[in-house]
Amino acid sequence: MKKVVTLGEIMLRLSTPRFERFVQAESFDVVYGGGEANVAVSLANYGLDSYFVSKLPKNEIGQAAINQLRRYGVNTEYVERGGNRIGIYYLESGASMRPSKVVYDRANSSIAEASVNDFDFDEIFKDAEWFHFSGITPALSEEAAILTEEALKAAKKHGVTVSVDLNYRKNLWTPERAQEVMTNLMKYVDVCIGNEEDAELTLGFKPGKTDVTTGELELAGYQNIFKQMKEKFDFKYVISSLRESYSASDNGWSACAYDGNEFYHSRKYDVRIVDRVGGGDSFASGFIYGILSGKNFKDALEFGVAASALKHTIHGDFNMVTVSEVENLLKGDASGRVQR
Amino acid sequence: MKKVVTLGEIMLRLSTPRFERFVQAESFDVVYGGGEANVAVSLANYGLDSYFVSKLPKNEIGQAAINQLRRYGVNTEYVERGGNRIGIYYLESGASMRPSKVVYDRANSSIAEASVNDFDFDEIFKDAEWFHFSGITPALSEEAAILTEEALKAAKKHGVTVSVDLNYRKNLWTPERAQEVMTNLMKYVDVCIGNEEDAELTLGFKPGKTDVTTGELELAGYQNIFKQMKEKFDFKYVISSLRESYSASDNGWSACAYDGNEFYHSRKYDVRIVDRVGGGDSFASGFIYGILSGKNFKDALEFGVAASALKHTIHGDFNMVTVSEVENLLKGDASGRVQR
Amino acid sequence: MKKVVTLGEIMLRLSTPRFERFVQAESFDVVYGGGEANVAVSLANYGLDSYFVSKLPKNEIGQAAINQLRRYGVNTEYVERGGNRIGIYYLESGASMRPSKVVYDRANSSIAEASVNDFDFDEIFKDAEWFHFSGITPALSEEAAILTEEALKAAKKHGVTVSVDLNYRKNLWTPERAQEVMTNLMKYVDVCIGNEEDAELTLGFKPGKTDVTTGELELAGYQNIFKQMKEKFDFKYVISSLRESYSASDNGWSACAYDGNEFYHSRKYDVRIVDRVGGGDSFASGFIYGILSGKNFKDALEFGVAASALKHTIHGDFNMVTVSEVENLLKGDASGRVQR
Amino acid sequence: MKKVVTLGEIMLRLSTPRFERFVQAESFDVVYGGGEANVAVSLANYGLDSYFVSKLPKNEIGQAAINQLRRYGVNTEYVERGGNRIGIYYLESGASMRPSKVVYDRANSSIAEASVNDFDFDEIFKDAEWFHFSGITPALSEEAAILTEEALKAAKKHGVTVSVDLNYRKNLWTPERAQEVMTNLMKYVDVCIGNEEDAELTLGFKPGKTDVTTGELELAGYQNIFKQMKEKFDFKYVISSLRESYSASDNGWSACAYDGNEFYHSRKYDVRIVDRVGGGDSFASGFIYGILSGKNFKDALEFGVAASALKHTIHGDFNMVTVSEVENLLKGDASGRVQR
Amino acid sequence: MKKVVTLGEIMLRLSTPRFERFVQAESFDVVYGGGEANVAVSLANYGLDSYFVSKLPKNEIGQAAINQLRRYGVNTEYVERGGNRIGIYYLESGASMRPSKVVYDRANSSIAEASVNDFDFDEIFKDAEWFHFSGITPALSEEAAILTEEALKAAKKHGVTVSVDLNYRKNLWTPERAQEVMTNLMKYVDVCIGNEEDAELTLGFKPGKTDVTTGELELAGYQNIFKQMKEKFDFKYVISSLRESYSASDNGWSACAYDGNEFYHSRKYDVRIVDRVGGGDSFASGFIYGILSGKNFKDALEFGVAASALKHTIHGDFNMVTVSEVENLLKGDASGRVQR
Amino acid sequence: MKKVVTLGEIMLRLSTPRFERFVQAESFDVVYGGGEANVAVSLANYGLDSYFVSKLPKNEIGQAAINQLRRYGVNTEYVERGGNRIGIYYLESGASMRPSKVVYDRANSSIAEASVNDFDFDEIFKDAEWFHFSGITPALSEEAAILTEEALKAAKKHGVTVSVDLNYRKNLWTPERAQEVMTNLMKYVDVCIGNEEDAELTLGFKPGKTDVTTGELELAGYQNIFKQMKEKFDFKYVISSLRESYSASDNGWSACAYDGNEFYHSRKYDVRIVDRVGGGDSFASGFIYGILSGKNFKDALEFGVAASALKHTIHGDFNMVTVSEVENLLKGDASGRVQR
Repeated sequence: MKKVVTLGEIMLRLSTPRFERFVQAESFDVVYGGGEANVAVSLANYGLDSYFVSKLPKNEIGQAAINQLRRYGVNTEYVERGGNRIGIYYLESGASMRPSKVVYDRANSSIAEASVNDFDFDEIFKDAEWFHFSGITPALSEEAAILTEEALKAAKKHGVTVSVDLNYRKNLWTPERAQEVMTNLMKYVDVCIGNEEDAELTLGFKPGKTDVTTGELELAGYQNIFKQMKEKFDFKYVISSLRESYSASDNGWSACAYDGNEFYHSRKYDVRIVDRVGGGDSFASGFIYGILSGKNFKDALEFGVAASALKHTIHGDFNMVTVSEVENLLKGDASGRVQR
Repeated sequence: MKKVVTLGEIMLRLSTPRFERFVQAESFDVVYGGGEANVAVSLANYGLDSYFVSKLPKNEIGQAAINQLRRYGVNTEYVERGGNRIGIYYLESGASMRPSKVVYDRANSSIAEASVNDFDFDEIFKDAEWFHFSGITPALSEEAAILTEEALKAAKKHGVTVSVDLNYRKNLWTPERAQEVMTNLMKYVDVCIGNEEDAELTLGFKPGKTDVTTGELELAGYQNIFKQMKEKFDFKYVISSLRESYSASDNGWSACAYDGNEFYHSRKYDVRIVDRVGGGDSFASGFIYGILSGKNFKDALEFGVAASALKHTIHGDFNMVTVSEVENLLKGDASGRVQR
Repeated sequence: MKKVVTLGEIMLRLSTPRFERFVQAESFDVVYGGGEANVAVSLANYGLDSYFVSKLPKNEIGQAAINQLRRYGVNTEYVERGGNRIGIYYLESGASMRPSKVVYDRANSSIAEASVNDFDFDEIFKDAEWFHFSGITPALSEEAAILTEEALKAAKKHGVTVSVDLNYRKNLWTPERAQEVMTNLMKYVDVCIGNEEDAELTLGFKPGKTDVTTGELELAGYQNIFKQMKEKFDFKYVISSLRESYSASDNGWSACAYDGNEFYHSRKYDVRIVDRVGGGDSFASGFIYGILSGKNFKDALEFGVAASALKHTIHGDFNMVTVSEVENLLKGDASGRVQR
Repeated sequence: MKKVVTLGEIMLRLSTPRFERFVQAESFDVVYGGGEANVAVSLANYGLDSYFVSKLPKNEIGQAAINQLRRYGVNTEYVERGGNRIGIYYLESGASMRPSKVVYDRANSSIAEASVNDFDFDEIFKDAEWFHFSGITPALSEEAAILTEEALKAAKKHGVTVSVDLNYRKNLWTPERAQEVMTNLMKYVDVCIGNEEDAELTLGFKPGKTDVTTGELELAGYQNIFKQMKEKFDFKYVISSLRESYSASDNGWSACAYDGNEFYHSRKYDVRIVDRVGGGDSFASGFIYGILSGKNFKDALEFGVAASALKHTIHGDFNMVTVSEVENLLKGDASGRVQR
Repeated sequence: MKKVVTLGEIMLRLSTPRFERFVQAESFDVVYGGGEANVAVSLANYGLDSYFVSKLPKNEIGQAAINQLRRYGVNTEYVERGGNRIGIYYLESGASMRPSKVVYDRANSSIAEASVNDFDFDEIFKDAEWFHFSGITPALSEEAAILTEEALKAAKKHGVTVSVDLNYRKNLWTPERAQEVMTNLMKYVDVCIGNEEDAELTLGFKPGKTDVTTGELELAGYQNIFKQMKEKFDFKYVISSLRESYSASDNGWSACAYDGNEFYHSRKYDVRIVDRVGGGDSFASGFIYGILSGKNFKDALEFGVAASALKHTIHGDFNMVTVSEVENLLKGDASGRVQR
Repeated sequence: MKKVVTLGEIMLRLSTPRFERFVQAESFDVVYGGGEANVAVSLANYGLDSYFVSKLPKNEIGQAAINQLRRYGVNTEYVERGGNRIGIYYLESGASMRPSKVVYDRANSSIAEASVNDFDFDEIFKDAEWFHFSGITPALSEEAAILTEEALKAAKKHGVTVSVDLNYRKNLWTPERAQEVMTNLMKYVDVCIGNEEDAELTLGFKPGKTDVTTGELELAGYQNIFKQMKEKFDFKYVISSLRESYSASDNGWSACAYDGNEFYHSRKYDVRIVDRVGGGDSFASGFIYGILSGKNFKDALEFGVAASALKHTIHGDFNMVTVSEVENLLKGDASGRVQR
């Protein structure tokens, strides 16, 4: 099994059941998730030896987060214990024209306050083949930004392929600070994942005119941005998922990729949404798996899109699908007929 | 805060969870609601000083109804306690071509048996700006019809604007009785809300040929009726929501209004339904809020339609939306994208 | 009340709640069902004197299955108690492009190991008017195949009309074995229900080119097959439901029939799915009821299709609809408007 | 199977889950129950051919009540359909020193407004061996009192043994009216069940000094009353359950009986309560079963006490226990050890 | 209605359902609570005009907390909105010898970071009769300690009676800091509530030898401490609840009080626990209500003990009992018999 | 971390929620468990490197079982995938004098049909320190008995300490067969765990007169048996838990041990039961942990008893307690006071 490493925050997610509004809820469904943790679980599902690196408080809530990672096959031996709290996000499930809402309460989490000394990156990246992180991790705090760069240095030292999901979070930092930090980190990155908005906010690229709200996509704009990104940072691949948000209940879902040579737009899926959180993470992990399993970048992209289309039908942040399930969908069977 | 008053019945609603049929249910979800109570809650959500006037039994079930009103910001100091029972309605949630079913058990409720002496309408309407009632309240019993008229007289004495939602209920009275009572009450009304069917059954207007079952709308018929209504009763505005029932799961939703001058048809929303009960009430309260906050009648109508489109995505009778949420939808963002 | 008899297996169904995947489930919803049991319940709902014949273990789980049959009006006095276990099937509810999954665990069930001596078929078929079974029952075991033929002989002796739902189950037998057993049983059958795939796998007829996955229907192929079936076995009617699987959430649903004279294709319904298991059984029982209540084969077919369209909106294997509810839909009201 | 008949009301019970107070409840657990219905279910559980006679509204809630009776083996063919509503009772589960609370909403129920013409008592009591009713049935309304007497006359005409559970309900009538009606009905009764309080309130007997609140029992008082009752009405047996209410969570539970000869006090059980509603009914039905199955009155009493002790551990009004389970407890095994 | 004011923090409480351990939980029950909020709700239940003063974030979670306070009758107009987050506490329900566990995550809450300028204490205490706070509020932060003293000064200025519940929280401060702050605040206090441990940790009094773990009480020790407290701070009353923790499921519960004259020990209740959180707060509020309604200190204490005994049977932090329910228990009926 | 190995079956457990009877259940709570799996989880909880050896079907239900083991820290790399099914047991939760009921459906499970070739015992026992199995494993089938012996041989070859829990299961084999198989296996065993009944049924020892039903313990009898067992098989320790079953809700719980020298009876705990399944397994694992962590046999026994007393308060088969939680109880704090 190939060793893959992700570094980031895993949060307690508290979501209202049955489309309830926050003010109606008398209980919250409990799952744990976060960009990189979601990628770690997907990669474990696909049979890789998946390690998640983070820090969690030494209490039962932290333990519960670890247990859920273990449940879905992630190796948690590099999860440091300590600090004050686990980050939280509250999720209200939307429907139709009512959007889902996320309320973050993640300041001062254990990973946001972790230091480089909490981790032995040489040990962590020994024999690893891939390292994935997102723009959320360095945004958590100044220490976290340093931590991320140290991880990247170690990864490169060990010859590990690196992917990033740009993932701009406006609650965590400003575009100015994001660009300062992220531009510096891009030199370690081989595969860059992120939509136009992220590319602008975290790296300063000016996108073409895509109005994501109306759901119209400007592939041309993407192609243009991707070329700029490739040129500036010499990424091996630049990819992005493409969401057309018809409503909180129905989305169009596809992706595009650029390998320096060719710009490719995948098949598009119309998805009836059960839970769209983690959609982007499942896309990233599908692509990573695709490349690691020897697919070309187009097939890897199609794998990523199909995997993440399925994610939209699954409760929670984690994408619980196997390689064979994704391949069934790739073969063209989106009919949803009962499998007996 | 502007004081607004509603008078009517609040019932215990017992609904089957998860689309279950009545014969399958081993539990009922419990909410409390009713036409005027739903309006009262919406108006409180929008920041008005909303008073609900009713009578509830002096037992814990009556108290629970009061508590839910208070929870959502309604002032319940004019809710009299006494009488025998709270009215009940059972709700089976439909799906696709299977309709939702309502079984009423509301006879002999405390409010149906309340008398004029239970309420001090002079106190109630002091400093009030708006009074809303529906055709359900006078239909509850002969005492309730008298009570309604007394409330209307007091409202007018205090210079309060009055709106009515015609809301014909075939289980409560006949068209003949309805027309006898309601025609008399219309002299107190400034804003009349009701679709063609209600206009015919409660006021005797002959509608044009609208086949509500197939969902085809005859706006012309509405225009014609609205003119007649305006002429006969000198309403300031006549408005109606317009439902196109594609199925129990999906509806088209818009509204029309007439101010004596112009007939206006709002934007239409296609809604994926979570719970459509209270849709009309949320429309009425959106319009009332619109007028009270100084909008013109078209903008008030658009506010009412957007608010009630959102209601269809919310569990229970009450519409839990804020002014800013409605305004976001009015600004055109029906994409349902996650709000972080 | 007309006496109708069904023979088959009733299983414990363990399904994940709220679209959960198997690996996420911390509870299973419990219902009981199976092809013939589902037919028995539907026929009881329609007011027939419906007897289900089977064998269940003498423990509380077997009793619970009986209790659910009784609850929905089925007469269980011919259910023998004994043997080792109740068959189980696990059901994971799919959504959108993610298919539902069924995992069977039905080997060695009490009915699979039952013998002819467990049942007094002369008593069972006394005064009966209809007998229904499916291709699942003889597939359960060699004893079950013998049992089925003995039941059929007794039914014929008592002048009972016989229907079969071919229902090929690949986990239970091979096409070769199926054809050997089923071809022999067809001589007792008056009404044959089954799609092209079943006709091929259980009876060896070669279907035309229908690609059920893409949802395109070749009615011509059905017509051709139905004629062959009619000629070979002299069935009175050959019928089939027709499913167009757009996704796990949305299906097209209609049916076709041949009476030796005319080939008829019913109205088609687009259904938003709550639970599609038992759809075929509810179709068969609707048709049986139609014929038993004196309808012609086209009207009976329309009744069956409408009844089973409604089934897709109902949780569990059983179709909880009454004759009047089906007739409302047949009259054209698929609008799903609230019934008060 | 021996035919037994009960006549009375079955209500919808709405109870708060998990010890919640009424004002906290967001859902109610739904079961159906009532004095005589509970007896009917117990007798069906014990293998008797148990018929319940009542009237229920012709809506789905009425049907759900019937379905639950059928589920547990009761024959419902004598349940008339019609009238306006099903009676309701709300139940808040107490704990420790906090008492359970019942709020009744049963006025104007279908059975309270039923007439003698709704039932064919000659048909009902044909071949019957036992008839059971309670003091609740004649208290429902004047018509119900007449109905009860007509049933009793028919029962006697057919030579059926009659038992009554006195069950005084202060919300339904006054002691004066109760004594007027009940004294008259006693001439039809063979077995009288009821505690001192009931004997006083419904029949006017003066009990000795039993302070039921403190849990002290005065068996001597019971013996005295029982003798008076026997003398006045020539009952074959007079019996009563004896509850020592330590708290809402723990009770002592036994019974006493008098056969004209001997006064007998049963074994006492200390019960940890899951649900005590229906305890008295399960006691009555246990005794009835005991006598019908040929036990002497002491053994029948012990059977009734053991059966009803078990009832306290079962959710809902109905006692779901089999003869063999009661017998296991009678043999002395109250250890609660796991049965594998 | 008498106006009463409480100042403190209301937290989101996330508790595991059904005695689950944290690592098992897939959902959390959601209630809101906190020492002073719990008192505010109790006082509202008793019919007082109860105002809660605090600060909550301007998001939907903050709104939900307000809604729950309103639901139970608390006036929330003095709750300021702003700041970063609502404090959280996680609760794992214990059973038998397994203790309940609380994990706090309350740092940086809106109220902890509130300033004196957020509140207009002159307005708040106008016409107020009682002010209650606890040792938790000044422990939240340095600002909170200042805020508390300002509130106390204003209360005294308006002639308001002041009570404190000492409530030492080891996660919030050290005994040294507690004594420094609390000793200073005691000069504003009329009624002091707190057990020996609190008296030692927050005020430095040396208790006698009470081993609270073994459940043995040393009333003498209490008497001694109370006298010291009275002398030093001239409290009007010093009171404490007395818990004998037999296990997480069963406790003994009583209280003692000293009025400078007499030391009084209340009746003791043995409680089967549903939820013991908030037990102390319900005791405090019962005593406050007692005094405010004119009872002498012994009767007020008995009222407080009875009220809080009932609290242990109620889910959540809030005590949902009415004056009449407490009085029923005071009259001696702890039998838990069903109230119909 | 010390490597420990267990071999056995893990089953799907389907239990009724909230004390429901089987015939009432509309859902089952889902956990996975089994004697050896339960031990494996406990040992993982205590920080050991715990490997579970078994075989599970290659479907999602098998995967779900593995995921739950991983969640709680068990290494599942030696779990072979294949065969036909996972064994099932149904559990009805008892209360008071109503016993819990278990219905087994475990025949033909994957592990029962596994062969020696499915496992590489040399690899499995490399570096292992302890091997635990129970009398259930060899009882599953003849192949399973062979498998067990092969495992034992390998364990001994690698110098691994071996413990057995005798655990007689009457549904799996006869005493004759049990004694034939088990007597032979005892030569590999160092630590024998089992009560008198097990000792008699599986090994043929005649116990003294212990009437387990009445809860009276004859320690003398145990001492006598233990001596015989020690003499015959040269066990290092013979231990047994001692259950006094007062009712399904309350048990007394202690243990005794013999080391060839001294007979020791532990502290006794009175437990209020949440879930007693797995109590014996949690006792065995506590003792094993005690010995492995260097305690003497008495301290190890006390650790085992305290750990398993806590288990009775935890839902599911698995004992979710940490070493420090057990040690807190050992230190004498059974007061269940809230830990903040």
